[in-house]
Amino acid sequence: ENLSTLTNKYGEEGDQLMFKILKRGEKLAKELEEGKIKNENELTDLALRYDLTVPLARVVANYKNDLPKFFKRYQIQPVWRADRPARGRYREFYQCDVDAIGSNSMIVEAELCSAVSEILERLGFEDFEIKLNHRQILQSILDKKIRPEKQKEVITIIDKLDKIKVEGVLSNLIEIGVSEESAKSLAYLFTKLEELYKEAQEGYLSRKEKLEHWNSALVELVTKKVESHDQGKVGLQQIRQIREYAFKHSVTDRIRFDVSLARGLSYYTGAIFEVVLTNGDFSGSIAGGGRYDGLIGMFGKEEIPAVGFSLGLERILLIMEERGMFPDDLTTNAADVLVTVWNEESAGESLKLANELRQKDLRVMVYPQADKLGKQFKYADQIDVEYVCVLGESELAENTVQVKNMKTGEQENVGRDKLSKEHFSS
Amino acid sequence: ENLSTLTNKYGEEGDQLMFKILKRGEKLAKELEEGKIKNENELTDLALRYDLTVPLARVVANYKNDLPKFFKRYQIQPVWRADRPARGRYREFYQCDVDAIGSNSMIVEAELCSAVSEILERLGFEDFEIKLNHRQILQSILDKKIRPEKQKEVITIIDKLDKIKVEGVLSNLIEIGVSEESAKSLAYLFTKLEELYKEAQEGYLSRKEKLEHWNSALVELVTKKVESHDQGKVGLQQIRQIREYAFKHSVTDRIRFDVSLARGLSYYTGAIFEVVLTNGDFSGSIAGGGRYDGLIGMFGKEEIPAVGFSLGLERILLIMEERGMFPDDLTTNAADVLVTVWNEESAGESLKLANELRQKDLRVMVYPQADKLGKQFKYADQIDVEYVCVLGESELAENTVQVKNMKTGEQENVGRDKLSKEHFSS
Repeated sequence: ENLSTLTNKYGEEGDQLMFKILKRGEKLAKELEEGKIKNENELTDLALRYDLTVPLARVVANYKNDLPKFFKRYQIQPVWRADRPARGRYREFYQCDVDAIGSNSMIVEAELCSAVSEILERLGFEDFEIKLNHRQILQSILDKKIRPEKQKEVITIIDKLDKIKVEGVLSNLIEIGVSEESAKSLAYLFTKLEELYKEAQEGYLSRKEKLEHWNSALVELVTKKVESHDQGKVGLQQIRQIREYAFKHSVTDRIRFDVSLARGLSYYTGAIFEVVLTNGDFSGSIAGGGRYDGLIGMFGKEEIPAVGFSLGLERILLIMEERGMFPDDLTTNAADVLVTVWNEESAGESLKLANELRQKDLRVMVYPQADKLGKQFKYADQIDVEYVCVLGESELAENTVQVKNMKTGEQENVGRDKLSKEHFSS
Repeated sequence: ENLSTLTNKYGEEGDQLMFKILKRGEKLAKELEEGKIKNENELTDLALRYDLTVPLARVVANYKNDLPKFFKRYQIQPVWRADRPARGRYREFYQCDVDAIGSNSMIVEAELCSAVSEILERLGFEDFEIKLNHRQILQSILDKKIRPEKQKEVITIIDKLDKIKVEGVLSNLIEIGVSEESAKSLAYLFTKLEELYKEAQEGYLSRKEKLEHWNSALVELVTKKVESHDQGKVGLQQIRQIREYAFKHSVTDRIRFDVSLARGLSYYTGAIFEVVLTNGDFSGSIAGGGRYDGLIGMFGKEEIPAVGFSLGLERILLIMEERGMFPDDLTTNAADVLVTVWNEESAGESLKLANELRQKDLRVMVYPQADKLGKQFKYADQIDVEYVCVLGESELAENTVQVKNMKTGEQENVGRDKLSKEHFSS
């Protein structure tokens, strides 16, 4: 993307973690040599996609007239962040995004939660929760304690709560100049939330009942916090609405209202989501999203409302791998059959036989050179191919093949024209 | 990738067209400010993948012991080149690669030609040819005329033959300092090839016979050219072998020996391929590849032979689009049914209905806000959805839905519990 498309959309951290592309051409070399370039910005004109949302916003703004009034799209593509790599965190990774453009209604939030929920259930996840919060609730809390110009920075700190805990948030807030009183009052809120959450987990209730218990307790708490803040009240009303719609979608037992959820990206304006796993084997989020009603307007004349949700592909794959969630029929071997090659002269016949077997819907590999038969068997074993089709001197003379089952060791001599799929299944 | 992984692998043009990533951090800012940086190379440490082959070679060299003796893989990912964008040529594009590592045998070349051929046939292409040449044949021709240190540059010029024609090659060769005699002698060869090719196209022969005619004529011509050049003779022998094996794969009527085929990338060491369309609506190649026996050794101690073929996804999509080759069932509309939303209060019921219909395997969209019914019908028309499921006040009261066929205008009142897939197919 053009660098200017991406900068000032994600917040300060985003601008820092963006990979930027060096300008090209002879002019750059000359200016460098003359020592004219003093500033990084003169060196770069392009940057790597930091997410799929900002590029989508640009496209929607530019092609508004070619798109339907409500535009939904999914997109799976790599994005890049110059972050410190860790388990499930890479500098290049794939995001799986689904976005709905053009509507202000919470119907869209509920539908996206439902879509993500269904995807995760179909993949076999059972222990996920969709954390839900609202930027305007967050703001109504911050407005009482934090100066407006500091709020974005504070949100970035709160976003790290899971990692750095309440103590970390407290010290980071003080570090950036938040008054001790305000910082402590925020820290107190987060501590209280933790207590409330633990309380809600106690007893012999079902997971769904516990979640319901927690959500009600939190709505009560937040109702008091936002009562004198118009935008905060709207936020809470929208949270209620999303939960009500989601209930109809039967995803309500997935949604956990969490007033400490912040999201790091600065473009969110309304509801925000983050999907976490509760089993304890992965502490980061595996999906996240929210409403960004102001972003498309940054690229055009018109403000267009939008909501998006993004799944982190590598994290999901990592956890599925570690938990052994991949279905057996996905972890197949490389081929059903390996065709041997007797010598360079007969290799053509082996290729022809492979072709014949492929016509019968078999997945066929040809041993890629002439070699001792023993080595070819050994290779079949190594790559876990169950059947070997031997095409040696006598088989070529008799127009037959020797079919060997590598598991049982059984061999069978079959006429070339009689070969069928049945010879390669036990 | 690390910049050092990619540089000096593709030739001079590759190094120039590579997108390089600016170094990150405060040190860079400080050095810039002090005017210490005089050279582009001090600014960059990473670069964007220029193709999928060099990164594969790095991985194979690094993980040799974890891979089977013969390693085959396919990979579909974006690559980047700072080229001038044109029809079917983008700065970011997807390559679809298939590579076979570990064998010296021409079996592999034949198998890859067969795989690419089958892919293109399955996509519906009928007019493609796989141009085939060999770097050592090319070298045996150049060895007589061009100094070794100039040969790579000359190959890059010959690679542009299709674009700049024989006259362009001639003038470019003279420009880089090739003697007029040598340049003219090369130009003469290419002119002669063109004549031969035209000759082979004449008469009432089938496409296959014409190709056979041409291939034989060319083998005859090249046999003379390489007779005093050992490597050239090996090259020609390998071309023969590939064609023989490919014949068994029944792709022989696709392969056209073309001694002017050069390929721009410098890592090729043996057979080289390029797939072109003969209909005349697209002049560039849609796939290309070759043998690169020296590349993996550049990343490790051991030379490992390898062959690869790469299809250009966007070009193939572009041509399929222009030729109307996409099957009808791929160009579907966004949904089978649109469910209307009567008002904010009933929206939950609409979402619930959508869920019920999805359980019945229908692709369902919910109109994403409360709106006038006429607008919702209009939208269904706009996005080409055939059925609308109206859930209005009376339907909600009676527990029914109104199913409207947008093409015929027919409407039917159906009980919620009676709804089935049949109501949404004409």
